[in-house]
Amino acid sequence: MNLWNRYAPELVTDLYELTMAASYYRESMFGEATFSLFVRDYPSHRAYFIAAGIEHLLESVAQFRFSESSLEYIASTGKFASDFIDYLGRFRFTGSIRALSEGRIFFCNEPILEVTAPIIEGQIIETLVLNVIQLETMIAGKAARCVHAAGGRGLIDFSLRRTQGVDAGVKAARASYLVGFEGTSNLLAGQIYGIPVFGTMAHSYVTSFHSEMDSFLAFARAFPDNTVLLIDTYDTLSGAAKAVEIARMLRAQGRELKGVRLDSGDLVSLSKGVRKILDEAGFPDVKIMASGSLDEYGLKELLDAGAQIDTFAVGTKMGVSADSPYLDIAYKLVEYDHRPVLKLSSGKKTWVGRKQIYRRYDDRGMMCEDLLTLASDDRATGEPLLEVLVEDGRPARAPESVETIRSRFRREWETLPLPLREIIPTERYVVRISPALMAMDEQVTDRVMIEEVRQPSIRQR
Amino acid sequence: MNLWNRYAPELVTDLYELTMAASYYRESMFGEATFSLFVRDYPSHRAYFIAAGIEHLLESVAQFRFSESSLEYIASTGKFASDFIDYLGRFRFTGSIRALSEGRIFFCNEPILEVTAPIIEGQIIETLVLNVIQLETMIAGKAARCVHAAGGRGLIDFSLRRTQGVDAGVKAARASYLVGFEGTSNLLAGQIYGIPVFGTMAHSYVTSFHSEMDSFLAFARAFPDNTVLLIDTYDTLSGAAKAVEIARMLRAQGRELKGVRLDSGDLVSLSKGVRKILDEAGFPDVKIMASGSLDEYGLKELLDAGAQIDTFAVGTKMGVSADSPYLDIAYKLVEYDHRPVLKLSSGKKTWVGRKQIYRRYDDRGMMCEDLLTLASDDRATGEPLLEVLVEDGRPARAPESVETIRSRFRREWETLPLPLREIIPTERYVVRISPALMAMDEQVTDRVMIEEVRQPSIRQR
Repeated sequence: MNLWNRYAPELVTDLYELTMAASYYRESMFGEATFSLFVRDYPSHRAYFIAAGIEHLLESVAQFRFSESSLEYIASTGKFASDFIDYLGRFRFTGSIRALSEGRIFFCNEPILEVTAPIIEGQIIETLVLNVIQLETMIAGKAARCVHAAGGRGLIDFSLRRTQGVDAGVKAARASYLVGFEGTSNLLAGQIYGIPVFGTMAHSYVTSFHSEMDSFLAFARAFPDNTVLLIDTYDTLSGAAKAVEIARMLRAQGRELKGVRLDSGDLVSLSKGVRKILDEAGFPDVKIMASGSLDEYGLKELLDAGAQIDTFAVGTKMGVSADSPYLDIAYKLVEYDHRPVLKLSSGKKTWVGRKQIYRRYDDRGMMCEDLLTLASDDRATGEPLLEVLVEDGRPARAPESVETIRSRFRREWETLPLPLREIIPTERYVVRISPALMAMDEQVTDRVMIEEVRQPSIRQR
Repeated sequence: MNLWNRYAPELVTDLYELTMAASYYRESMFGEATFSLFVRDYPSHRAYFIAAGIEHLLESVAQFRFSESSLEYIASTGKFASDFIDYLGRFRFTGSIRALSEGRIFFCNEPILEVTAPIIEGQIIETLVLNVIQLETMIAGKAARCVHAAGGRGLIDFSLRRTQGVDAGVKAARASYLVGFEGTSNLLAGQIYGIPVFGTMAHSYVTSFHSEMDSFLAFARAFPDNTVLLIDTYDTLSGAAKAVEIARMLRAQGRELKGVRLDSGDLVSLSKGVRKILDEAGFPDVKIMASGSLDEYGLKELLDAGAQIDTFAVGTKMGVSADSPYLDIAYKLVEYDHRPVLKLSSGKKTWVGRKQIYRRYDDRGMMCEDLLTLASDDRATGEPLLEVLVEDGRPARAPESVETIRSRFRREWETLPLPLREIIPTERYVVRISPALMAMDEQVTDRVMIEEVRQPSIRQR
């Protein structure tokens, strides 16, 4: 059961992938190409990225076929010759993909993956690769920052209602779970990935009853072992007093009220007030949950100010990565037919050639420096990060479960230097460019400058 | 053929919709409820909203059923009694939906739609309603601002690669087309909605050839009647000089080069330089297209500075509504069992009761004021905006095509006061609250304050 399968991945494509492919086909350009996927720059306040979405990508690449209806649509645009449409009908991805496993931490300019395949195959999957990897990678980073800011308190994803579509909602639930959220409100994500689901009541529930107390009583009747009461519909402290009555009633039945939720107002003072009411009434174990426009910045502010909150429901701002709703991610041709290539377009640097990342750790096991170099560089040392995940079009290993990835991220996080974990980081991780890569890049740049740039005055980059 | 159908809409749901529904079911609360969907506040620099996504919502509500696999999943959570699961198995939406037709302009606090149905039915579709309407409404607004900023120049959606998932990509293509974009690069949206598709080549295409000229020649061979050359891979003005050679070659064949595209650098000076090169070579009709991190702000800046660009490809920033990536949208219970209800949660105002919006126009046909009032208010005058689109669970009219909606928006736009159209608007549209609505709201507020709020010190709102 997988949401992704329900799309036609072959049409998750910009038209230009097909016009380019048609030209390559016409020119008989079937040489091997390597495309590299990387993020050019950090969004504000971010100092690391977390690879995510790889499993989704591998699955859709494995299943990538042009269905009859897709071929009919493509033919109907009137832009393509029939021999090319026939070629698309036979299309399979036969190349290799070297990638970071999901949950690994990486940095600017480091390839998340490199695709090596006949150029048409590498080109046609471009839009799909970008769309799938960017969203989950972006959300995983945002969610990891929330987990860090929460300092050990539980986090639940409540974002589905305001994510940018349903696909995004499911992926936000998955990505946030991968980096340490306890679960989600999202039933579709619960069904697809087996992520734990949470939720109790909305304000509409409270207001539909003749009184707030009636609504609390009804909920406790329906879910006596899992009663969490939303207490801010009318007045939070009055709501807390009513919650105490419910807690007493449940205790008389040999049960305990599980928690209360606050969704508005000054969460610092209200949570302290509610905690006091609950504690003084003899219910120190009733948890306080809070929600409402939270992300890492809000969480840090609340906790720095002493808010007494046990669990946070984090919604919209995490689910859309509100402070940085896209990554400057690019998928670039770096080698064709054994020839390294690059573009010079100003302000958009791409490192040439097939590459590998080597990571080095210090004595305490913390990552301390990455080396970006050519895949052919046999003098590089450290832990190579890109692994072969697809070879000759076939998966090189079994799909990974969300639990496997979640565990990998937990280990990976422990190696991330503390300054980089901060909400407002004060350091940048060092990614060194190897002399071999630097030399090749300069050589190709020089060649291109001489051969292609006819305006001497603007040859300076 | 519809992407949306491929989801299980019944699981596009937060768990709490079902826990509330289970409690309503247990309490035999089957009374009629009205829920109202509205946006609380304008995102920065926005002064209007455009209703979008309604057709998608109507379609999924009509098909809303709990499949066997969905019921099995819900049962597997262990949270629900079997009689409630059986109830879900029989679930159909039997209520009514009064809504704005897509393409209509609306303002803060005005209902985009109101659902009137047995409370469980109105509650269970909450997450779906919010997710579907917010995304397309948000993107339609962002895209309309781009259309306005472009001042009559053509716009094409290039956002798919960095939208927040595939669902968002398809909806961004549709929403931007509804408000005047000429088309999209997105093949899936092209297939589903019949939106015109555009696209030619990427930098990877250019770099895969031994020279830029070779790549231009190959593309002109494959698409002689639709050649648009990307000329900034190495150096834009050098690329323009090569484009002139291609244009001469095509003209010798009785054809014309269609255009060139710039994707980086200072688009103002480069577009002027390229225009000069093309004009002086005798190709004043070759269009200049530009792309690269554009949205309404960038478009305005370029055009104010005299950029000579005919068509813009607008991508990521429009497709994720980068400056405001979510709306403060809410779906609130406003009436239950013929009793108006509201919540008081601070800072989150909801107007009680079933409502209608009446619009008034001035002598020149420009909208000048809306009145928000109770649906039962028979003294209100003006054009009523909410129409019955679903009655007794059945569609009250045939689905609308994107062309129908696009035409409606074009007419609607002509009635929008000029100051509200500005990229940095200086006015707010007047939405008056009727005396009848104001009185009912005060009456309900007073009752709730007396009955529910036990802390006299915080009774002031």
